[in-house]
Amino acid sequence: MGRTGTRTGEVMEAIRRRMANRQLSPGEKLPSIRSFAATMGVSPSTVVEAYDRLAADGAIQSRPGSGFYVSGAMPPLALAEAEPQRDRAIDPFWVSRQSLDAGADMLKPGCGWLPADWMPNAAIRRAIRQLARADDGLLADYGGTRGSLPLRRLLARQFADEGIAAGADQILLTASGTQAIDLICRLLLRPGDTVLIDDPCYFNFQALLRAHRARIVGVPYTRNGPDAELFAQALAAHRPRLYITNSALHNPTGATMTPQTAHRLLCAAAAHDPKAQDLTIVEDDIFAGFEPEPSPRLAALDGLARVIRIGSFSKTLSASIRCGYIAARPEWVEALVDLQVATNFGGPSPAAAELVLATLNDGNYRKHLDGLRRRLARVRRETATRLEAIGLTPWLMPRGGFYLWCSLPDGRNAADVARAALREDVVLAPGDVFSVSHSASGFLRFNVTQMGDPRIYGVLERAMANTSPP
Amino acid sequence: MGRTGTRTGEVMEAIRRRMANRQLSPGEKLPSIRSFAATMGVSPSTVVEAYDRLAADGAIQSRPGSGFYVSGAMPPLALAEAEPQRDRAIDPFWVSRQSLDAGADMLKPGCGWLPADWMPNAAIRRAIRQLARADDGLLADYGGTRGSLPLRRLLARQFADEGIAAGADQILLTASGTQAIDLICRLLLRPGDTVLIDDPCYFNFQALLRAHRARIVGVPYTRNGPDAELFAQALAAHRPRLYITNSALHNPTGATMTPQTAHRLLCAAAAHDPKAQDLTIVEDDIFAGFEPEPSPRLAALDGLARVIRIGSFSKTLSASIRCGYIAARPEWVEALVDLQVATNFGGPSPAAAELVLATLNDGNYRKHLDGLRRRLARVRRETATRLEAIGLTPWLMPRGGFYLWCSLPDGRNAADVARAALREDVVLAPGDVFSVSHSASGFLRFNVTQMGDPRIYGVLERAMANTSPP
Repeated sequence: MGRTGTRTGEVMEAIRRRMANRQLSPGEKLPSIRSFAATMGVSPSTVVEAYDRLAADGAIQSRPGSGFYVSGAMPPLALAEAEPQRDRAIDPFWVSRQSLDAGADMLKPGCGWLPADWMPNAAIRRAIRQLARADDGLLADYGGTRGSLPLRRLLARQFADEGIAAGADQILLTASGTQAIDLICRLLLRPGDTVLIDDPCYFNFQALLRAHRARIVGVPYTRNGPDAELFAQALAAHRPRLYITNSALHNPTGATMTPQTAHRLLCAAAAHDPKAQDLTIVEDDIFAGFEPEPSPRLAALDGLARVIRIGSFSKTLSASIRCGYIAARPEWVEALVDLQVATNFGGPSPAAAELVLATLNDGNYRKHLDGLRRRLARVRRETATRLEAIGLTPWLMPRGGFYLWCSLPDGRNAADVARAALREDVVLAPGDVFSVSHSASGFLRFNVTQMGDPRIYGVLERAMANTSPP
Repeated sequence: MGRTGTRTGEVMEAIRRRMANRQLSPGEKLPSIRSFAATMGVSPSTVVEAYDRLAADGAIQSRPGSGFYVSGAMPPLALAEAEPQRDRAIDPFWVSRQSLDAGADMLKPGCGWLPADWMPNAAIRRAIRQLARADDGLLADYGGTRGSLPLRRLLARQFADEGIAAGADQILLTASGTQAIDLICRLLLRPGDTVLIDDPCYFNFQALLRAHRARIVGVPYTRNGPDAELFAQALAAHRPRLYITNSALHNPTGATMTPQTAHRLLCAAAAHDPKAQDLTIVEDDIFAGFEPEPSPRLAALDGLARVIRIGSFSKTLSASIRCGYIAARPEWVEALVDLQVATNFGGPSPAAAELVLATLNDGNYRKHLDGLRRRLARVRRETATRLEAIGLTPWLMPRGGFYLWCSLPDGRNAADVARAALREDVVLAPGDVFSVSHSASGFLRFNVTQMGDPRIYGVLERAMANTSPP
């Protein structure tokens, strides 16, 4: 073996040693050719030859355009274990799975939806009976890639009422509101990109962004919406690709963004990125139907230049008949259509879109929503009074919706209270599930529509009594 | 400025120069600290300081764990443009969008589904009327994270009949068959990982894998299934993380994997990866309902150790009422549940699952399938005869299903023929859409159920006549 051969062998041996002692694990990237050449004091071509030989042996593998990687099993992406030190009680999946899979005997003041008997079931049953008489094509075919045109036209008219000019072609129906955000993340994010979210915010945003391997940065949330000053600072410091927010009836606080806040956020975005190329804002409008009167919308101020509007019908109509939507710049909608074809072959279920359309067009649906808003206003007040009586204080009284974001007395820890309540078959939503900075351990989110059973208050009192203040 | 300061400035200047002349573009990764230190002949700490200052200026940004990147817009992921030199007529999205968005006056022998009036619409209408009388909870709630338990139990019984022991807990319902594969890709793939697919294969596999930024390698497909020898070679050469295949009634050829091929594939996989850690096989069983009698299944031979079985009801029941499924190792199902919660909040629509279940349980559904198989056998023969009469030769006569994979006469190019046919409102499926190596330009895939209109044959003859042989 010549001198070059010896050097190549030395480089191979050095890599093998690192693999043996787990300095380099299966799936991990090897040092770049140049840097390892510098480390070993050899020429880059020697490292190239060593890597090629190791690849031929199967010890490492080349990924064109990316580099060399140690062979062997890549561990599957385990979202729940992405932060193994994390307390399962404040894992975003914990509340989702506990709520979704809860038995009929469980009480769920921590869940994010109305009880089934609060939903417009009579109108839905009428829509279903009507569907049984639909054309064969509607019952059997995939349907168009953007989803039901009549439903998109109805949405376009609603948007026009809000001051958002979006033609039916600028609207894409999706399988759900979550899937709408997921498609946008697929379009705009690369692994490692930074995304801003409110702190606190809907816990599933964190779960979704973890699935995209995004870096998550929180913007502190105030009673007027996100802190505009800290938002501007976060743009400069972190150069995020996306910001995801609820502007009306924010989850979990129930707050609504003020017009000043909405304007300041968009000005900060424009100052940071004048051409609307680097920063996109996703406005998740899933609770809009619960508003007593319209509030400012980022999408309306911005005219869908930088802002993408998404929503669904799961909260006010049905979560069983699922359909979401995206309204965005035309060129983004085109790209999102391709992505939805690739990942779900086509748009949302035509049968589901037809049921949503027929229910929205049912004369009784608007009346149902009016009655629902009045009922929610009453139940919010009553529940707030009962919670205050046992020491749980609402952070604010929301204008609408079904959430109350309450602080616990005496610095008690919400995760401890949630664990104690779960032992009595009550699912709570502890604050840190919603907080990327884990700074909401003193809060619980309550769903006032799921608190009709008086047993809940006794369980809460016992759970708090058994949880000593720090 | 001291000597160190000057050096830092030189490094910053060198990076700025590379950005100005587009050696480094927005979104691109900077050289590693060590390699750039070697390039510039300075110490790594000087490069660290230079990068930190450039990051403070906003010119570059740090992604922890990944390195430094040039700031500025990352272009959105444009799937259709990922290979800009590609002919739109042989782009996998072209056939999907042309077929899905075709007007009622278009003829679609290139599409991948039955005409609406071939579907079990009477049974579906009965199921819909039954749904109108369901509990409020079924109509309004999200449902459990794995999807309808009765439907999962029915699937478990079907699997048991095939020799696959999978409890209902090992089955996850999804929004569609495509979404089932998408979730598996999310679980197991990292960007740059290699995936094997059959060449030719269902064109949307390529589109889906592009969305995952996977490296795609084709395995030549024979009349007995994938070429087992070349499959084994591809394992050694490319160390793929996944292999995705249809074992029964392969799309686009209609071929069925022989028992010998199935056994040899699994032996090759075991020889390459004895612990079933590195290579997972996804068996897409979407055409199983069209088989006249059961054929070998990788999932049955393997016992769901390395193989994941997926499927849906879109081809035999309804593509409008969408529901897919995954049967896999228990620990993978757990992780997939979290992923589906994160990306679609919960499982598939409970209303859709209930409609699928009621239709499958309808006494007439089995009879419908029997009649459908007889009708397909007759129409396959008739269509093959008519196509042969105009010079289009089936590669083989499939045992079931609705596809005929036909070669064009005299080396004509299928993309040219497809473009000419589209001008007469006929959507064809040119061979290269299915072929990752673009080696099927002499083939067209026909859907025999979409060829009832005799106009199609005239259009085909004209399109071929106007397309000169090479």
